Amino acid sequence: MAAVKVALGSRSYSVHVISGGLDRLGSLLSRCYETGRCALVSSPRIFKLHGPKALRSLKRAGWKVDTFITPDGERVKTPAQVTSLHNRFAEARLERGHPIVVMAGGTLGDMAGYAAATYLRGVPLVHVPTTLMAQVDSAIGGKTGVNLPRGKNLVGAFHQPGLVLCDPEALSTLPDREFRSGLAEVVKYGCIANPRLLSRVESALSRDRFPGPAELNRWIVECVRIKAYVVSSDEREGGLRRILNFGHTFGHALEKTQGYGKLLHGEAVALGMAVALHLSRQAGLPSSTAQRVIELLKHAFPRLRFPGISWSTLSRAIAADKKTSHSRTVWIVLNQPAQPEFVRPTDSAVRKAIEQARRAWA
Amino acid sequence: MAAVKVALGSRSYSVHVISGGLDRLGSLLSRCYETGRCALVSSPRIFKLHGPKALRSLKRAGWKVDTFITPDGERVKTPAQVTSLHNRFAEARLERGHPIVVMAGGTLGDMAGYAAATYLRGVPLVHVPTTLMAQVDSAIGGKTGVNLPRGKNLVGAFHQPGLVLCDPEALSTLPDREFRSGLAEVVKYGCIANPRLLSRVESALSRDRFPGPAELNRWIVECVRIKAYVVSSDEREGGLRRILNFGHTFGHALEKTQGYGKLLHGEAVALGMAVALHLSRQAGLPSSTAQRVIELLKHAFPRLRFPGISWSTLSRAIAADKKTSHSRTVWIVLNQPAQPEFVRPTDSAVRKAIEQARRAWA
Repeated sequence: MAAVKVALGSRSYSVHVISGGLDRLGSLLSRCYETGRCALVSSPRIFKLHGPKALRSLKRAGWKVDTFITPDGERVKTPAQVTSLHNRFAEARLERGHPIVVMAGGTLGDMAGYAAATYLRGVPLVHVPTTLMAQVDSAIGGKTGVNLPRGKNLVGAFHQPGLVLCDPEALSTLPDREFRSGLAEVVKYGCIANPRLLSRVESALSRDRFPGPAELNRWIVECVRIKAYVVSSDEREGGLRRILNFGHTFGHALEKTQGYGKLLHGEAVALGMAVALHLSRQAGLPSSTAQRVIELLKHAFPRLRFPGISWSTLSRAIAADKKTSHSRTVWIVLNQPAQPEFVRPTDSAVRKAIEQARRAWA
Repeated sequence: MAAVKVALGSRSYSVHVISGGLDRLGSLLSRCYETGRCALVSSPRIFKLHGPKALRSLKRAGWKVDTFITPDGERVKTPAQVTSLHNRFAEARLERGHPIVVMAGGTLGDMAGYAAATYLRGVPLVHVPTTLMAQVDSAIGGKTGVNLPRGKNLVGAFHQPGLVLCDPEALSTLPDREFRSGLAEVVKYGCIANPRLLSRVESALSRDRFPGPAELNRWIVECVRIKAYVVSSDEREGGLRRILNFGHTFGHALEKTQGYGKLLHGEAVALGMAVALHLSRQAGLPSSTAQRVIELLKHAFPRLRFPGISWSTLSRAIAADKKTSHSRTVWIVLNQPAQPEFVRPTDSAVRKAIEQARRAWA
């Protein structure tokens, strides 16, 4: 078990990584907030798996819990779902001091986090992420939001949680495809910040099996540390934080052109990293390094195909990216392992990198 | 003309009160942001009145303007309208650096301000308020939001503008009823912070005419100063800022039970102040002072009737107020002129004050 601090002045908080930690949700919540009423937001599937344990822990610590079950997935990460949650919070008369505990994967975490950010202009938020993706990435750092037809996460707010509780045991029930999706983000952290993490993932996958609990715990803690450091340095993504978007520029474009929910986020990011790695070669990253990471990704996603989408469709989707500035999209590339930098490549450079990645992936 | 600073560290900004200031919108905007693209959000009526002047000024300063016309009013201050604006922003490919200029009254200002707060997790916002209500109150301080069926402003965000431009000349086209609605907020500032302002309003109204441009300018600047001071001291309404809700606890309940848009906000606040003034008598405010302000309000709203709504309906609406804490609603009362304080009165005290206010208003 570990507690990693996200240092943000008066909005600092701890990310607890505790095997079996769900049992301690109630007491941890009582350390952060005055024990009283709270809301528990979860999806039908996650609530069935972990709801009873979470409720037991909350009630044992003296919390009175209103439960809000709502669907999960990119397709329902919409403004309409946020409004539905808002209306249900208002019906239940949730008040300003009542924390909203979101026990869910990344998409519902983003959506319900945004609902918490904007209900009564912001109420306390606690994340209990139940996917690898959410534990290593989306539950930390305060980004919340929903999708528009025009693009992912085009609407949202920065709203830091007051507490994050990652229970790696909760991942034992994660579907294989979801687990692999989260692996993409672990590989991302390895690329941008820690080549040793990359080697560990490589070594685990080369034995053709997923990591054991102790190794998995270690990966999660390392990812959380990197994310906490980056977010503490640049909460609002004015600079450094954008390195976390490695693989995401193309990944978001893929998700959008494929229709949300067809590709999992991590799958899109894996393909996006393949493109970013080929762009990185243009910035000086050795081809062998790029190829090694792409092999690792292919190993992690053996059934994933590079979708055949026309350049004109992709380039429009890329241009709609939030990170566009002065009409040229900003990409994150590596000029060496763990040395990310920002570039604004030309259209033809991007197009070439996509073709190279497509071939490398085949 | 005057520029009042709202001091909030790196988010500080100026509120300019300038007669004929619309002509200077473009150059003032260029002082705050890199000249390029911007959005202008307005209502059909306001755009018809002031749009050409605003556009001329913006274009003269080199701005490329996308115009978004959208309906105004409490009835359309909804999550659905925000989503509609978001989709239009995304269609137009507005980017992170493009300021959104909202030229409108208070309700559209709140709604479009919330759209700016949440589009791409927050883009620059500029308010050009065109009602007295918005110039003295809602355009300053960063509160944005929309209504839910359960209550007013139950959803929203704090998002400070980068610039506020109040042009008192724009008020010359304001319908009489709208002007009087704004007067309620001027009286509120007089009550909570400046008895001399109260006397000035009293004296203007006793001559049975609205103030001339110079006097009006003076009122606006004084209100802006009070609001700027309060907001600078307590941006997030943890304490002092709640004094701005004088009259609003009952006002919001009235608006809700009457259906949004039937009573104007200022009308509801005027009746709400009458109730708060009677509650204030219980806290020590001399009856004569309470009665004097109520007479002033009756003078300002000669056609306004105290609606006949049952206590059970009102008490439910009051309890749903955002400022509820531990299930007892917080009211702002005066224990002396310009000495507001917070109280949590019993239901029977509230009921009595409502009855007294109803009789006083008749």
